[in-house]
Amino acid sequence: MNLDQEGTAMKCSKGVLALAIVSVFCAVLSCAAPLFAAGPDDELMNRAKAVFGPLPASMPSPDNPITPEKVKLGNMLFFESRISIDRTVSCAKCHPPGLYAADGIRKAIGNHCKENPRNSPTILNAADQISAHWIGNRTSVEDQARQAVTGPPAFGMPNNEAVEKVLKGMKDYVILFKAAFPNDKEPVTVENFSKAVGAFERTLMTPAPFDDFMQGNAKALTDQQKRGLKTFMDTGCMTCHFSPYLGGKMYQKFGVFEPYQKYTKSVQVDDGRFAVTKSEADRFVFKVPVLRNVAMTPPYFHDGSVDRLVDAVTIMSKVQLARDLPPGQADDIVAFLQSLTGKMPESISRTPVLPAED
Amino acid sequence: MNLDQEGTAMKCSKGVLALAIVSVFCAVLSCAAPLFAAGPDDELMNRAKAVFGPLPASMPSPDNPITPEKVKLGNMLFFESRISIDRTVSCAKCHPPGLYAADGIRKAIGNHCKENPRNSPTILNAADQISAHWIGNRTSVEDQARQAVTGPPAFGMPNNEAVEKVLKGMKDYVILFKAAFPNDKEPVTVENFSKAVGAFERTLMTPAPFDDFMQGNAKALTDQQKRGLKTFMDTGCMTCHFSPYLGGKMYQKFGVFEPYQKYTKSVQVDDGRFAVTKSEADRFVFKVPVLRNVAMTPPYFHDGSVDRLVDAVTIMSKVQLARDLPPGQADDIVAFLQSLTGKMPESISRTPVLPAED
Repeated sequence: MNLDQEGTAMKCSKGVLALAIVSVFCAVLSCAAPLFAAGPDDELMNRAKAVFGPLPASMPSPDNPITPEKVKLGNMLFFESRISIDRTVSCAKCHPPGLYAADGIRKAIGNHCKENPRNSPTILNAADQISAHWIGNRTSVEDQARQAVTGPPAFGMPNNEAVEKVLKGMKDYVILFKAAFPNDKEPVTVENFSKAVGAFERTLMTPAPFDDFMQGNAKALTDQQKRGLKTFMDTGCMTCHFSPYLGGKMYQKFGVFEPYQKYTKSVQVDDGRFAVTKSEADRFVFKVPVLRNVAMTPPYFHDGSVDRLVDAVTIMSKVQLARDLPPGQADDIVAFLQSLTGKMPESISRTPVLPAED
Repeated sequence: MNLDQEGTAMKCSKGVLALAIVSVFCAVLSCAAPLFAAGPDDELMNRAKAVFGPLPASMPSPDNPITPEKVKLGNMLFFESRISIDRTVSCAKCHPPGLYAADGIRKAIGNHCKENPRNSPTILNAADQISAHWIGNRTSVEDQARQAVTGPPAFGMPNNEAVEKVLKGMKDYVILFKAAFPNDKEPVTVENFSKAVGAFERTLMTPAPFDDFMQGNAKALTDQQKRGLKTFMDTGCMTCHFSPYLGGKMYQKFGVFEPYQKYTKSVQVDDGRFAVTKSEADRFVFKVPVLRNVAMTPPYFHDGSVDRLVDAVTIMSKVQLARDLPPGQADDIVAFLQSLTGKMPESISRTPVLPAED
């Protein structure tokens, strides 16, 4: 390179540099513009992230590692009705995929039309709670599945052996249990049934627009939904309904300021967790339910006594927070709750073919 | 081209011709060899084709043309339980996809655990029969769906208006009915419910290994299945169980030579089609059931009185044909019937998300 050339090169590189600086400036400006405009969104996102946190990809448990073999078997067993006393009850009966894995009735109906004591919650995003069932009388989803097969208003089988006998009568199940529990000498057990169903349930996540919002997409929520989210946090709903599941992490008395039945018109008053602990402090105490997909899973509360979400929100505000929500705010919260409706997992949406009976 | 060239060209084309002739001969021989070797298979295929004929791609009806909009809506309505009196009964309750769209119990259980008079047949490959229901008291799948919603042991709704009110309460259904029945001023009706569900059912085909065999694939059936097919035709089963569905095309007395209950141990004797026609000739007469997927849809007969397929085959031979099948022949027929187990249609296997209630 001669000097002349060098000079030209320098001029050129200066020009390029200047252009680059201008470009960066423009880029910063074009990025910054919406960022500045979205200031309140940003703040709302950060608050929401701090309160709720990201939805995980699955809900693992050290007691029951998720394996593809267990999940495959659990997916089939979830739809299996032949292990119930009248051959009509499967997990899917009270958790049908068309209704977001809840059943749309006040209280779950089990074998021979026996009414269960409480409403069926969805089993989506449900395996990472402090316990299972409304009053916490099941320690985990596995414990729930284990007890359901002999539960009198559930599958109603006389004992575990009766369940195991039915399963052993279908050779495809014997093969699948062996594959899922390769170290077990006798793999076809109710214990392993519960582990397989539990492992399947631990994969059932439904990411929703709200997650997109928390990940930084300000457009994932409408303005009304953002107002609703803010109200949900400001009013105090999130004091109990926190975690990525918006619930499931604590117990709380239903009717802190007024008896809930005054508004729900519940025919029967439920003692709640008192039935488990016999402690007066637990009277009318229930597990705080997960709110994911709540807009798709009416009716509401432990007894399914309320049909409409806006009424449930208004009642909660009244009896839990002693607040009459100003007009529009309940609607805003409902709009926000609709942003928790996620995509149904393919696995539970697709019913597998079940084994033939030998 | 000069003469020399022409000569060479002629020599060439003669050579090519000779080569072509040899090639054709070889091709004929290579095709013919397995054909000759498969002589008995060929005869069996041709007989089977003549008796049963090919499974169609769908089961259209001039009264209810199949459209994608109707099928989509019908697919959703098939899983819809909220239009039953206790909100627990959908078409899928008695026809769950995991059990090949039958329910695995003796007699179908409807709303409030009411027992239906007879066993639930599969609704796969079922829309091209002379009638619906065991005694032919429904003219078509549409008629079946129409009557089911107010049928006392089925959905149990008080009247059509009650069903329509529920459907109209979900705006997504209103949109879908309008799309499926664009010329109707008032599209959300039970009549259109039945047409949508019917159109959906008319698409539910399950091609099976037996169809591959009839289409010329000799290896689609095992030797035992071929023996079973031959016995099925030679013994006379196909006198009633003809058509691509192996049944569904005629009525027949159950117990031609002996009362069926002698072998089925049925607790209650069913008068069959007599209940419809009041004609003595129709006493104990039932519609000949479709045998596709029969190995996957126990228990058997109109009252589900027999659990095992081999027993059902033996009883049929005894009471319909006055024949004691020699040892092994019932097993062969069962093996053949297993070749009628087809691939589940994706549409019914995948439960769609149902509309939210407003």
